[in-house]
Amino acid sequence: MAHLPDIQMSLRPSVVEFAWGHPAVDLLPRSDLQRAAWSALADESLPALGYGAAQGPGRLIELLRERLSQIDGREQPAEGILVTAGVSQALDLICDLRVRPGDIALVESPVYHFALRILRDHGLDLWPIAADEDGLRIDALEEALGKLRRANRRASLLYTVPTFNNPTGRSLHAGRRSRLMRLAAEHGLLVLEDDVYRELWFDEPPAPALAGYGPPESVVRFGSFSKILAPGLRLGWLQADPALVRRATASGLLTSGGGINHFTAHVVAEYIRGGVLDRHVERLRGEYRSRRDALVAALERHLPDGCSFAPPGGGFFIWLRLPEGMDSAALLPAAEAAGVSYVPGTHFHIDGGGGRHLRLAFSLLSPTKMEQGARRLARVIAG
Amino acid sequence: MAHLPDIQMSLRPSVVEFAWGHPAVDLLPRSDLQRAAWSALADESLPALGYGAAQGPGRLIELLRERLSQIDGREQPAEGILVTAGVSQALDLICDLRVRPGDIALVESPVYHFALRILRDHGLDLWPIAADEDGLRIDALEEALGKLRRANRRASLLYTVPTFNNPTGRSLHAGRRSRLMRLAAEHGLLVLEDDVYRELWFDEPPAPALAGYGPPESVVRFGSFSKILAPGLRLGWLQADPALVRRATASGLLTSGGGINHFTAHVVAEYIRGGVLDRHVERLRGEYRSRRDALVAALERHLPDGCSFAPPGGGFFIWLRLPEGMDSAALLPAAEAAGVSYVPGTHFHIDGGGGRHLRLAFSLLSPTKMEQGARRLARVIAG
Repeated sequence: MAHLPDIQMSLRPSVVEFAWGHPAVDLLPRSDLQRAAWSALADESLPALGYGAAQGPGRLIELLRERLSQIDGREQPAEGILVTAGVSQALDLICDLRVRPGDIALVESPVYHFALRILRDHGLDLWPIAADEDGLRIDALEEALGKLRRANRRASLLYTVPTFNNPTGRSLHAGRRSRLMRLAAEHGLLVLEDDVYRELWFDEPPAPALAGYGPPESVVRFGSFSKILAPGLRLGWLQADPALVRRATASGLLTSGGGINHFTAHVVAEYIRGGVLDRHVERLRGEYRSRRDALVAALERHLPDGCSFAPPGGGFFIWLRLPEGMDSAALLPAAEAAGVSYVPGTHFHIDGGGGRHLRLAFSLLSPTKMEQGARRLARVIAG
Repeated sequence: MAHLPDIQMSLRPSVVEFAWGHPAVDLLPRSDLQRAAWSALADESLPALGYGAAQGPGRLIELLRERLSQIDGREQPAEGILVTAGVSQALDLICDLRVRPGDIALVESPVYHFALRILRDHGLDLWPIAADEDGLRIDALEEALGKLRRANRRASLLYTVPTFNNPTGRSLHAGRRSRLMRLAAEHGLLVLEDDVYRELWFDEPPAPALAGYGPPESVVRFGSFSKILAPGLRLGWLQADPALVRRATASGLLTSGGGINHFTAHVVAEYIRGGVLDRHVERLRGEYRSRRDALVAALERHLPDGCSFAPPGGGFFIWLRLPEGMDSAALLPAAEAAGVSYVPGTHFHIDGGGGRHLRLAFSLLSPTKMEQGARRLARVIAG
């Protein structure tokens, strides 16, 4: 019988795998999590093993509330936080609560491709909203909203990654953030802000989250421990209007089995209580900054004329534009044959766009490996 | 600020809480799970911390395959197993994959009330199918299917707890199992078999799971570690036609974040590898058998004439019928005032039925506590 894999990732030793947007394996805090798990199960009153509170364990919510209040520089209410099994489950849950098949969802373009799949699984009709170097284009959003209004229709939601976007690494300009939230309030649009890269900034902290610019009922913000601790924990949270959090906790899913991922939530609460998270995130910033710098330098050194990219201020990705007339999907077989891989830009678009772009992840690979990969990629592009 | 709870359950010290259908807290294998968590994080190749395979970690699937093959006495294919975040998430996932709002779902009546809520959250139109002392009534099912066929409609699924049913403790007779599966195949009905109590039999092993009686595409079987290890793990599995498992693993939810509850799945895999699960389940059987015996004896000792119940052969519950003319929901305030609680039978019905019944859980409480509770309940019933 074939052996089934434990994990998603499978690396080909001969290929520099820029395609996997995963955290660096050597930066996962294994032994601190090991101690936290031990400690979470040391409590003989067994809070980690009973059916969890639907909102998530109170102890983790309180720690998140403190931490988010500190990051955002303003008080966050505990009633607006829900512990989730990562952003994907959070997005799935919000769709279950708020949309029906056939509803319209606006999506930033380009944007995280697997989120698009979750939205499609819910039968949503996706409309792309273009982005540029300052993030989502507000004029494009206004145009779409106007078109909908004239057709007497409305969009149920807008999905966006406004801070260190996946795949572009770009962030939504602060001025656009407030215009976006004004439009959302005006049109009754629910903005889903995928905010998983916020803490992984390299040069300066990013603009505040969208919730800081508009009424709480207009935005749901998704956060995750996948990038700052470990993806296998599959633990995240959402922040929303307390009324929406209450609707979620009243759902059959959370009433029946109790809070999702309850045991892991206790492990992470113990980890945070241990006081090592800030130092760990600080270390990640430094390490990922070096990796970004290494890839930027390698690309600048090797890429032929006609290629372009903007060094990202945080996150995991560089969004590379190929010389005119080239197509990243068409180029991929040659690239893989030359021992380098990436994700073609079309994957992050729903309208066939992005053909001239490709996504390179610098999070997973060592500088040496990336130097080798950049050289191979440059050679393939140069033909 | 109010302190948010960590867990679902809150016990009133002055009340004998027969309402909570939770595993006994003193039977949760805390220290063995603690060692398993340590061991899962001892592996420096870090399989527990990366994005998980969408189907669940191969190592847990293989252990489940072996274990289920042994329990069922026939080989189970690994491709038909999906690791889930418990039965509730599994049920939610299958609904996401297989139903649309407005579809018809047949539900055993009475049946686990929170599953009904999950089905309702998906906009399903629920039709009750009556059960008696031998479980789901096949004549009632035939009648409903016939009625649907004549109306040129069909049911998307049937949800049932055929083995040590929650709330009745009854099991579907073997003869009915094969008739049920024949009907399912004939009508293209997907049977969802909630099988969480199978291993907790007290007198003799239950009849085989429904999958043993019909084609794999007609049934999805849900299993869970909530009852045999700990509910806070929120870890379970489903068994289905491999084609349906593949549809699930291709969903955005599992492609994006990776397998659900990946870290906990590794902890449980380590626990099972440690070789202590069979002994633990054996111990649970003995302990829950004693608790059933204690509650049965206490009820027989104290209940007034006109009450009746059948001692269950497994599971967590006794389904008590009150004397004619009494209503369990109406009686509840007096019972709680007298220091005893239960779930009224109407909660497990969607048609207003069950008013003369109530559910008592014997899983959570000590024999002494249950003796006290039975006495209080008897006094309230006697008026």
